[in-house]
Amino acid sequence: MRTLDDLIKPSVRRLAAYTLTPHRVPIKLNQNENPFGVPSAIVTETLRRIAGRDWARYPDFVPTDLQAVLAHFAGWRPDGVVVGNGSNEIIQALLTILVSPGVAVILSEPTFTVYRLMVEVLGGTVVNVPPRADFSYDVPAMLDAARRTQAAAMILCSPNNPTGVTVAEPELRAVLSGFDGLVMLDEAYHEFCNQNFVPLLADFPRLVVLRTFSKAMAMAGVRIGYGLVAPELAAELTKAKLPYNVNFFSLVAAQVAVELYDTELRPLVEQILQERERLTAAMSDVTWVRLLPSHANFHLLHTPQVTPHRLFEALLGRGILIRDVSRYPLLGEYVRFNIGTPDENNALLDFFASTHPDDFDERRRGE
Amino acid sequence: MRTLDDLIKPSVRRLAAYTLTPHRVPIKLNQNENPFGVPSAIVTETLRRIAGRDWARYPDFVPTDLQAVLAHFAGWRPDGVVVGNGSNEIIQALLTILVSPGVAVILSEPTFTVYRLMVEVLGGTVVNVPPRADFSYDVPAMLDAARRTQAAAMILCSPNNPTGVTVAEPELRAVLSGFDGLVMLDEAYHEFCNQNFVPLLADFPRLVVLRTFSKAMAMAGVRIGYGLVAPELAAELTKAKLPYNVNFFSLVAAQVAVELYDTELRPLVEQILQERERLTAAMSDVTWVRLLPSHANFHLLHTPQVTPHRLFEALLGRGILIRDVSRYPLLGEYVRFNIGTPDENNALLDFFASTHPDDFDERRRGE
Repeated sequence: MRTLDDLIKPSVRRLAAYTLTPHRVPIKLNQNENPFGVPSAIVTETLRRIAGRDWARYPDFVPTDLQAVLAHFAGWRPDGVVVGNGSNEIIQALLTILVSPGVAVILSEPTFTVYRLMVEVLGGTVVNVPPRADFSYDVPAMLDAARRTQAAAMILCSPNNPTGVTVAEPELRAVLSGFDGLVMLDEAYHEFCNQNFVPLLADFPRLVVLRTFSKAMAMAGVRIGYGLVAPELAAELTKAKLPYNVNFFSLVAAQVAVELYDTELRPLVEQILQERERLTAAMSDVTWVRLLPSHANFHLLHTPQVTPHRLFEALLGRGILIRDVSRYPLLGEYVRFNIGTPDENNALLDFFASTHPDDFDERRRGE
Repeated sequence: MRTLDDLIKPSVRRLAAYTLTPHRVPIKLNQNENPFGVPSAIVTETLRRIAGRDWARYPDFVPTDLQAVLAHFAGWRPDGVVVGNGSNEIIQALLTILVSPGVAVILSEPTFTVYRLMVEVLGGTVVNVPPRADFSYDVPAMLDAARRTQAAAMILCSPNNPTGVTVAEPELRAVLSGFDGLVMLDEAYHEFCNQNFVPLLADFPRLVVLRTFSKAMAMAGVRIGYGLVAPELAAELTKAKLPYNVNFFSLVAAQVAVELYDTELRPLVEQILQERERLTAAMSDVTWVRLLPSHANFHLLHTPQVTPHRLFEALLGRGILIRDVSRYPLLGEYVRFNIGTPDENNALLDFFASTHPDDFDERRRGE
């Protein structure tokens, strides 16, 4: 007689689930969300459009209206746009059509943890190629590993979460020329840097560019993302994503956000970039931590004198929630926080200006 | 040099995708939706609750409020409720943690086509055990097949789409006693019959009951469903579903629908049941087709004298969209339509009362 444990794949049983402990705090800088919130003009227009719709009917089988809008927005063809329940669903569908037991996927950790989780759930093998000391991708080593393992795919996140580094165009071209597997380029944070690799899609049908509405687009709660792919890959990908995977609300909200991007969202992105510069300058005065350069809407912070957990707790005590990333590979001395509103960033700066590593010793003694 | 085709798993490449051709018609009876639409009280209350929420923030990592509401609604424990982007996502996650190449899953076709699609995308083997002549499940044959193939799971849909038959409690108990794999019981249409197998969950941790908001709950466009499972299975299942898989809109809408079920939705379900009886009685006067008894909100119609496609086209000409299911196994002479509003059902009955098989011959001659 088999038990539940006997039925579940060993590759799944041995995994730890992706978890997050909820904290209710005034200043939330732990998930790289847009701190300004969704603009009210987008809310109003979305609610206006959905009010007349019959919620009892399935969404369109193929969301052609939104595909056309996204194709124009991103500069790619509508039949190469695949819309997902967050870009996570596109990553999952891509890996599902590629990965079975014995199949290798190249990652460079630290990176977004969901990649590894999904490869392992599917029984595939993660081949991790650590980055260089400055966290830049070690492309030659990744190409070597890919050849050695006959990897089916390589996942690059640019700018990378949680390090903020980008892959440069010559590096990406080297990957596309030197590796004959699928190259998944996760551009979740592309609005915060000056890169756009969509033009490469026309030349490289094995390139996939992933985009999300959860960061610059201020819609993490709406759950929508998309993949830009070769049309022949879109057809295969569709087999592994759920039918009717995106509800009518998200389809409408995404379309409204694109239509109002220039007037409503772009100014918020620009303000976040200004705040990033201001934080970088101000934090350079704090001697006991070091802010790494970032091309995204978050910063990695090196804290060699105070353990990340202790720093996390001290900030939480001030009502500021950041992310302790010290369990990520290579990041034992790091935390991450996203750029907040000016007031939120001031609160963060106040903390660092008024705190000294000795304060943590005091606290420890008092415990 | 590998091509895209070389990279994609053969089990995926050879699949036909699940597709549906869109038709805009006045009377839509092809997707088993609630024909009355979502009650306006549910829309109003949902919009009121979401207006104050910040769309830029991720939903709760674990939707504990909705889990508690659904647990009370369905009669199960909150830590055994897994909420999905439609019940499809729960089916997908369950199969993902169980199925790898070489693993068998028992189905009885004709049934919901997504089951087979998902098993095959994962590289598993579908073992199809045809039903009896009256479309009832052939449980002894299914148990034999399960033993012979060491199947990891058996999927039962009750009432079954598209046949409308149910599995009886003694049959389900025989499955649970005689098969030591996972038993997925899809109760998408349970509100339209008098069965409820949730009480069996306490005794059988290998039983999973699936529910959806797409049918009786009048929210197909919202995309939400849930699984009722043993808590130890919920923990494993969570590894294979996407983090933040359900957006805040759907979480709120589902909770409102449950809270207003008795006043707003139950009367609609009762009206659908009355219409089902009325249709059954009225269609018994039509001699050239035969309506099968149904425990769901749809009917399978046997049309031996007119090909399903021709009947589909003739109804479409009258503005009535039904489902041609003739490509399903054993259903070469069948179509399916769901119960509509009284007016919609009258239009359907008018068509059958005023049409004769010879009319189709006339039409063919005129082509």
